[in-house]
Amino acid sequence: MQNRITSLFKIKYPVIQAGMVWASGWRLAAACSNAGALGLIGAGSMYPDILREHIRKCKVATDKPFGVNVPMLYPDLEKVIDIIIEEGVKIVFTSAGNPKTYTSRLKENGITVVHVVSSVKFALKAQEAGVDAIVAEGFEAGGHNGRDETTTFTLIPMVCEKLNIPVIAAGGIATGEGMLAAMVLGAEAVQVGSRFVASDEASSHINFKNKVVESVEGDTMLTLKELAPVRLIRNKFFDDIQELYKKGTNAEELMRLLGRARAKKGMFEGDLDEGELEIGQIAGLIHDIKPAAEIISEMMQAYRQAVKKVKNLPEF
Amino acid sequence: MQNRITSLFKIKYPVIQAGMVWASGWRLAAACSNAGALGLIGAGSMYPDILREHIRKCKVATDKPFGVNVPMLYPDLEKVIDIIIEEGVKIVFTSAGNPKTYTSRLKENGITVVHVVSSVKFALKAQEAGVDAIVAEGFEAGGHNGRDETTTFTLIPMVCEKLNIPVIAAGGIATGEGMLAAMVLGAEAVQVGSRFVASDEASSHINFKNKVVESVEGDTMLTLKELAPVRLIRNKFFDDIQELYKKGTNAEELMRLLGRARAKKGMFEGDLDEGELEIGQIAGLIHDIKPAAEIISEMMQAYRQAVKKVKNLPEF
Repeated sequence: MQNRITSLFKIKYPVIQAGMVWASGWRLAAACSNAGALGLIGAGSMYPDILREHIRKCKVATDKPFGVNVPMLYPDLEKVIDIIIEEGVKIVFTSAGNPKTYTSRLKENGITVVHVVSSVKFALKAQEAGVDAIVAEGFEAGGHNGRDETTTFTLIPMVCEKLNIPVIAAGGIATGEGMLAAMVLGAEAVQVGSRFVASDEASSHINFKNKVVESVEGDTMLTLKELAPVRLIRNKFFDDIQELYKKGTNAEELMRLLGRARAKKGMFEGDLDEGELEIGQIAGLIHDIKPAAEIISEMMQAYRQAVKKVKNLPEF
Repeated sequence: MQNRITSLFKIKYPVIQAGMVWASGWRLAAACSNAGALGLIGAGSMYPDILREHIRKCKVATDKPFGVNVPMLYPDLEKVIDIIIEEGVKIVFTSAGNPKTYTSRLKENGITVVHVVSSVKFALKAQEAGVDAIVAEGFEAGGHNGRDETTTFTLIPMVCEKLNIPVIAAGGIATGEGMLAAMVLGAEAVQVGSRFVASDEASSHINFKNKVVESVEGDTMLTLKELAPVRLIRNKFFDDIQELYKKGTNAEELMRLLGRARAKKGMFEGDLDEGELEIGQIAGLIHDIKPAAEIISEMMQAYRQAVKKVKNLPEF
């Protein structure tokens, strides 16, 4: 049995493993694709040559469909797109930019294109640009985030009301119950990020994985709204930013404090004080690190259980 | 067929009409209770004598259970509690304060007590204080809001994981699909606010009701985090607050601009520029004003339809 998203990607389960900086290389993507989900290599933290290497390794590690996520705010974008086409990648998720820029070129090369949005307005723009599906990502999501602060619970039905192309829900989803809830709201699949950070195959530093497992409700916050809003764990780095805000700050000063190296320092090198730790609110519901395949099979089991529970609900 | 919440309140549908300032007087509460939901009189915008009048009128207008919502940050709190007990109200929802303050006194008087929270920490405190159920309200909710900014989609499962007492979901719920999604996440009922503002029986000004119907995704924002965070429509009043922020402001200056009269001016007197217009993100999904009984019956119909859809989902 299939829906529009599983048909589009030729995958078994309506689960997309989100492309995430410093977390989702070929190991995680291949593990997820092999387990029946769609694995995505996150190009955001890779130099072009590194991305090429990851794509090649992923092709060896799985004969199932996989894709690449391209945040369009990073440098070397043209080169990244060239590599994706040269290497014969079949699925691309674009985010953080204008979907018009590359959609037609990618589609001319036979690539399925999905764009990530955080508002109804951008969802309509993406549909107009010709993408095959969109990811609608709510305020609770980790990492880069929208300016409207619209949550998954309200964004999904509002986007589904206006769009004809299929919608993938993202933000706050780490369980089979969350998956079913998103589908009840109108989504045909879910994109899961934070849960896969706490997987064996994520390239994230073990300190960061442990931090995700230990974190509880309320431990993340959306900040840096003047630059690009980002959700991260409240640590010393977060407190330093808040200190600047209290004193009164500007974009340049924030940029100086921040730098791009902070994300690598936190998530890849494991510096939990000075590094940037991007994760979603749902981290509070993640309690262990395990292989991606187990995460997916448990998620699907919980999903089937949740469907059964709905069948047994009182008839109001 | 019943669940713990419909049994607790002796109501037909697991739907609570939220107590809301300047919106939910006896007319709305009685209409909702008569239609099978639980109607709540919102005491937050009523002087004690006015509240007594509303309770008495509600008793005449319905023989079904109804309740009173008491935000514990308003003055005359002691008097309000006395009136509730004197008038024989059977259900009280408390919010915005410490649940220990009045729970035991209310319960000694045979009153069912529910406390509204926005975090796991406060949910546990409410359970410890002996309340019968909690409302877990997400970041997308209109009006007063929590500091952790946790959304409905992540708050509900995280609260349900820790609590034994039943959980009512609030924030972003205006439809039967939303109702089912919240129940899939673990809630046993939903509290619905914004949808009932756009009802015939709400005492909200018609200008405000129309504004709610016209608003789209992205039109509300959480602000005034230094005082008590509140979600409202971005209008001239909102812009004036943002101007103060840009110049650098403090709590006193904000208090001066704000005053309590702003909420009345906007929501009750219909001044859409100078007034405070509290509403949730889900306003973007509300497209008409109708009788509360129709809202409830449509919501239940959509809920049953959503249950049916789940039964017909592909078996992944």
